Amino acid sequence: AHGRSRRLVRSYDKPCKTMRLYFHDILYDFSNSTANSTSAAATKPTALATAVSRNGTFFGEVVVFNDPMTEGKALPPSLEETAVRAQGLYLYDKKEEYNAWFAFSVVFNSTAHRGTLNLMGADLMFDKRRDISVVGGTGDFFMSRGVATLRTDAVEGFTYFRLQMDIKLYECYV
Amino acid sequence: AHGRSRRLVRSYDKPCKTMRLYFHDILYDFSNSTANSTSAAATKPTALATAVSRNGTFFGEVVVFNDPMTEGKALPPSLEETAVRAQGLYLYDKKEEYNAWFAFSVVFNSTAHRGTLNLMGADLMFDKRRDISVVGGTGDFFMSRGVATLRTDAVEGFTYFRLQMDIKLYECYV
Amino acid sequence: AHGRSRRLVRSYDKPCKTMRLYFHDILYDFSNSTANSTSAAATKPTALATAVSRNGTFFGEVVVFNDPMTEGKALPPSLEETAVRAQGLYLYDKKEEYNAWFAFSVVFNSTAHRGTLNLMGADLMFDKRRDISVVGGTGDFFMSRGVATLRTDAVEGFTYFRLQMDIKLYECYV
Repeated sequence: AHGRSRRLVRSYDKPCKTMRLYFHDILYDFSNSTANSTSAAATKPTALATAVSRNGTFFGEVVVFNDPMTEGKALPPSLEETAVRAQGLYLYDKKEEYNAWFAFSVVFNSTAHRGTLNLMGADLMFDKRRDISVVGGTGDFFMSRGVATLRTDAVEGFTYFRLQMDIKLYECYV
Repeated sequence: AHGRSRRLVRSYDKPCKTMRLYFHDILYDFSNSTANSTSAAATKPTALATAVSRNGTFFGEVVVFNDPMTEGKALPPSLEETAVRAQGLYLYDKKEEYNAWFAFSVVFNSTAHRGTLNLMGADLMFDKRRDISVVGGTGDFFMSRGVATLRTDAVEGFTYFRLQMDIKLYECYV
Repeated sequence: AHGRSRRLVRSYDKPCKTMRLYFHDILYDFSNSTANSTSAAATKPTALATAVSRNGTFFGEVVVFNDPMTEGKALPPSLEETAVRAQGLYLYDKKEEYNAWFAFSVVFNSTAHRGTLNLMGADLMFDKRRDISVVGGTGDFFMSRGVATLRTDAVEGFTYFRLQMDIKLYECYV
């Protein structure tokens, strides 16, 4: 964007940019591969979770992640060096059901895109589809805003889940 | 918003939407009701808090919450099934005084509103009124932005506080 | 802004407001001065960090801070009473290298400025310069948005680092 004028494109009916990406989270559980793990519980189980949880809904658990994101559903060959990564935290916040909250950055480092998108919002896991906010961006995504629609695409026990994330930007600066 | 055009309403002197909601936080303290508790300390006291705190200002404590929000001041009959909830985290960040920082979503699931607002900001508790940012929204609050003014409305020991939250949106998409 | 009209100034090539501030973080390590410390690890080392880290990259560590910000590089005489402070959290999220993620508010309480800016983003520490988002503001920074460019300016062991933070607002309401 250096040396030329940036222009705002706004459209509230049709996104100015859409991307479908899959978010892969592999939680370290003390026994699985440290090389493959991409997230870790930052906190111990809370007293409230221990008191009420019958099914591991983990009220109060905070997880830090640095997760690969891919265009297809398959895990990338190298979990450490994918061109798109999600970095930040999620937490669980319900006693009897699964429910989460996310705040993170999507970091693009590919020939197609270089820059970041910053997102936050409630991951209402009991809803089939739920929206979180894209609250800002940098680099190729300078000043972008929009919405990302999440859908749980796969769950394997407590150590792996995959989210389909449809990112729709409604403010783009080109 | 499907099948029709969305239009941006901006107004910087008069909000395009205002809501007054009360935020109720009931912290689990190991002895109170697990059914009624709506938040839990996710972390143990930090070494710094233990070293300096004479009055429980809890520097470094991170609390995860899923708190009911109501139009009136009274606690709702059922703490688990209110139509508006705040989900996210706050933390304490001062050694000699109370001071907090919030990042959370307000989740609306009523006949009046369906969608979320995402907020973050410093809760400067020594100020009578303090503002945090509404940084995005989804559903009925698609792409909204604004400010929320917080006021401490009630405090009962370490286990209950109520904030009056005046949400003012200055960018609405209708 | 009371009693007069607010006007939006947008400029995507030249910021409507720029500020260079230095961010000073003094982490309490159990032995240094509690009076001087401005941040504390809120979490214990994660199992994943303990399993893989050879060099203290601290995957999963969450740090809560209330850090002074200054116009010059020197630490302010009083660490508790600077006019500009950064309040929030950072976390480390990489196994073999340093990498961080930030979410915080810059709180201004001086004759020059009164209000807050709210920021979040990936602190890609292996890049010389990296951008995070200014996602909102209050008071003198009502509804502001922009980008902050971070540069590591000094590191002293595990207990002190200084970031140069160039805040550039592209949406200002005056």
